Amino acid sequence: MQIKEILKLTPEGQSIVVKGWVKTKRGQSNIVFININDGSTLKNIQAVVENGKISEDILKLATTGSAIAVTGKLVASAGAGQTMEVLAETIEVYGTADESYPIQPKKHSLEFLREKAHLRFRTNVFGAVFRIRHALAYAVHKFYNEQGFFYLHTPIITASDAEGAGEMFRVSTFEPNKAPLTPEGNIDFSQDFFGRETALTVSGQLEGELGALALSRIYTFGPTFRAENSNTSRHLAEFWMIEPEVAFFELEDNMNLAESFVKYVISYALENCKEDLEFLENRLLEEEKQKPQNERSELKLIEKLKFVVENDFERLTYTEAIDILLKSKPAQKKQFQYEVAWGIDLQSEHERYLVEKHFKKPVILTNYPKEIKAFYMKQDDELNGAPGATVRAMDVLFPGIGEIIGGSQREDNYEKLMARVKEVGIDPENIWWYLETRKFGSAPHSGFGLGFERLVLFVTGMTNIRDVIPFPRTPKNAEF
Amino acid sequence: MQIKEILKLTPEGQSIVVKGWVKTKRGQSNIVFININDGSTLKNIQAVVENGKISEDILKLATTGSAIAVTGKLVASAGAGQTMEVLAETIEVYGTADESYPIQPKKHSLEFLREKAHLRFRTNVFGAVFRIRHALAYAVHKFYNEQGFFYLHTPIITASDAEGAGEMFRVSTFEPNKAPLTPEGNIDFSQDFFGRETALTVSGQLEGELGALALSRIYTFGPTFRAENSNTSRHLAEFWMIEPEVAFFELEDNMNLAESFVKYVISYALENCKEDLEFLENRLLEEEKQKPQNERSELKLIEKLKFVVENDFERLTYTEAIDILLKSKPAQKKQFQYEVAWGIDLQSEHERYLVEKHFKKPVILTNYPKEIKAFYMKQDDELNGAPGATVRAMDVLFPGIGEIIGGSQREDNYEKLMARVKEVGIDPENIWWYLETRKFGSAPHSGFGLGFERLVLFVTGMTNIRDVIPFPRTPKNAEF
Repeated sequence: MQIKEILKLTPEGQSIVVKGWVKTKRGQSNIVFININDGSTLKNIQAVVENGKISEDILKLATTGSAIAVTGKLVASAGAGQTMEVLAETIEVYGTADESYPIQPKKHSLEFLREKAHLRFRTNVFGAVFRIRHALAYAVHKFYNEQGFFYLHTPIITASDAEGAGEMFRVSTFEPNKAPLTPEGNIDFSQDFFGRETALTVSGQLEGELGALALSRIYTFGPTFRAENSNTSRHLAEFWMIEPEVAFFELEDNMNLAESFVKYVISYALENCKEDLEFLENRLLEEEKQKPQNERSELKLIEKLKFVVENDFERLTYTEAIDILLKSKPAQKKQFQYEVAWGIDLQSEHERYLVEKHFKKPVILTNYPKEIKAFYMKQDDELNGAPGATVRAMDVLFPGIGEIIGGSQREDNYEKLMARVKEVGIDPENIWWYLETRKFGSAPHSGFGLGFERLVLFVTGMTNIRDVIPFPRTPKNAEF
Repeated sequence: MQIKEILKLTPEGQSIVVKGWVKTKRGQSNIVFININDGSTLKNIQAVVENGKISEDILKLATTGSAIAVTGKLVASAGAGQTMEVLAETIEVYGTADESYPIQPKKHSLEFLREKAHLRFRTNVFGAVFRIRHALAYAVHKFYNEQGFFYLHTPIITASDAEGAGEMFRVSTFEPNKAPLTPEGNIDFSQDFFGRETALTVSGQLEGELGALALSRIYTFGPTFRAENSNTSRHLAEFWMIEPEVAFFELEDNMNLAESFVKYVISYALENCKEDLEFLENRLLEEEKQKPQNERSELKLIEKLKFVVENDFERLTYTEAIDILLKSKPAQKKQFQYEVAWGIDLQSEHERYLVEKHFKKPVILTNYPKEIKAFYMKQDDELNGAPGATVRAMDVLFPGIGEIIGGSQREDNYEKLMARVKEVGIDPENIWWYLETRKFGSAPHSGFGLGFERLVLFVTGMTNIRDVIPFPRTPKNAEF
């Protein structure tokens, strides 16, 4: 039985076996207390070894990090911080851990633990983070299943490039520097495994649209890749993305879906991960004590999550946002590093101003300039006050995170889509199947992508994206 | 509202909007019937257009494959095969489909539809298959969540090779034939994106074990890859695998988990995909009519699934299985293509004999010869009647599918594991982190892998694995 389940029992002297890893062992002359954790919950269970019950030889091996099984009686505990404990009768040591075990009971830096990613799951912080990550992933599937969506596994190895200009990882079975050549001296990809040039997907969206234009509601939840040399606390070369795609949805429906989706999964974590969230909230408070007052978060972690769940996201157009930014204090005082003007790609400083200073809540920006958005976004028929052509894009911006969701209504008009494809320089032959869906029963449809790790960052209050995925892939790092 | 939801309503003349794709249109002089499907269910809803209600110009466009929205009243239907229909008041045609639309209302071969994978979701067969695939995927997450497992995203890009000798796809950002060289003339992988040689994972198991040895119960559900040039109806280069891994589980627990897992997800499909399964069952019966009597299935699709759910899997050792095979008629009559002897890797013909002829039910084989199994499997201490060393492996064999699950208890003894690693020629430096878990708090643990597409094949009764994954990746094929 897992510790999480044992802790739900009423202790009445029943026999019990506890299996897990020793967190701490405190010895006194005639009594020893061993704290055991099995990762099923943040909480430990304490085994009490009374004088002479267990041989010294065995007790000596039950050091921090060792794996043990304690058989004994589950009894109520008079000690502080626990309601029950196990009176040990026998202890079996499965595996020892000597002083070289890196996760000793003291504070370790997150950087140090990143080097020990194979063991960091055993710490309170990472146990909490990965239990919450699981809860969020489960909530994603639960939400979409309840809403009548079908989970679609779009391909990982692809010959297309959804963004039109992503930096992609090559996939090949050619020996390095031994690719065969055509008579003209080019690489002969027809001899490669797939008979063509292939790469790792940057998005399942294009294939997702094919599913939606048949099954109506689909979502993907899979790994995506960027071969960008970005060594920041916000970027991974390999990350998981959730991409719903819905036939007959227009931009407004898409915003409603995005907002209810994010609120649902955060609510789920609040309901199902209370202890872990409280632990991470306290961790964050400790961290922030070292910061000057004005850099500390205004809300505690759980308050922040509840705030997101309980309040409407602010919705406005890109054009309206530019107006607000132009009239803002930082713009007037020339404090923005990047100048504000209609047509720019909003920078992090602009998004943060809107979300954290102006609205103080999540914001959905819509109707971005066509030129700064992807080819597949539906073109607006009217300017609606914008000084240039816009598309039915929507970005959801979160405090501390920036863009957490990017999406749009998709261009469903064959001629407009084809014109845009050629304009941005994509070979129509390469995505003939995508274009054909606009020839055969095209329909309004919309979707978005949510970077799963950014969501986990937001919910856990962690600050480096490397700390919310089990084994991060970043430039010069593919360890484990 | 989706058609699945509309069909749950009580038709009482209420206003309704139906959006979907036209399956068929039957015209008569004064009345037209349009069958509409939106993929939310196998069932269509029929729109009835009475004389003159809708202009001829619009009706003309509502051909098979076009996307339309019908606004009208939901009324009870007197027609056969439906309980309600929509009396059309207005029709909006979102997107037309002319005669070149490939999915016309007639029988198409599965081979033809594979070439049209972007549109095949719109057929009854593939709609059913991918709705069932979704239900099975959801059931996987539901099962493990209920059992206290945490979903762990193990890396896709990896520098290790879990099987010791898999054929892997290379991942790189080097331009083909332009990889830089070291002074010694070797490929200088330190200049590649990850600073080392990387490939696509063949299994998340090794990393999964790291998670289990901290969180106790984890599972993966992600894409895995094999660069094998196998052009069969059973192999994909990219497929999805589910890999649970559990601390403190021994072989027996592992078998129990595998059996209850498979039964749970099949039960879930039986409960939640009744219509789609019935449709596929009928499809299969039609297919089999063309076969001679003795090649037809003994059980119908749904009977077969219920049989698996309701009966215990047969459990026996590899050694016992060899005995049965040696005494079998095909062995006596020398009808097996591959000779039976202790130590051989069982061939498909042997597995099929055991499952389909001898036991007539799913079979779990255990304690395989060490030499034919992976380095990480726990070595048996005793021979237990076997003529050679064995490991605590288990394979679950299914009728018509063969191996659907492969797993084992893992070697938790550092010295034995290290000896085996060296024996099979793996560089211990390459998996230092894996080996370290046997130095720090090692514990008995077990796990297995289930190829998700093989499960979908079994449940849907489809026969080619390319037909149960949206966009199959096989040698010389990465289309879509």
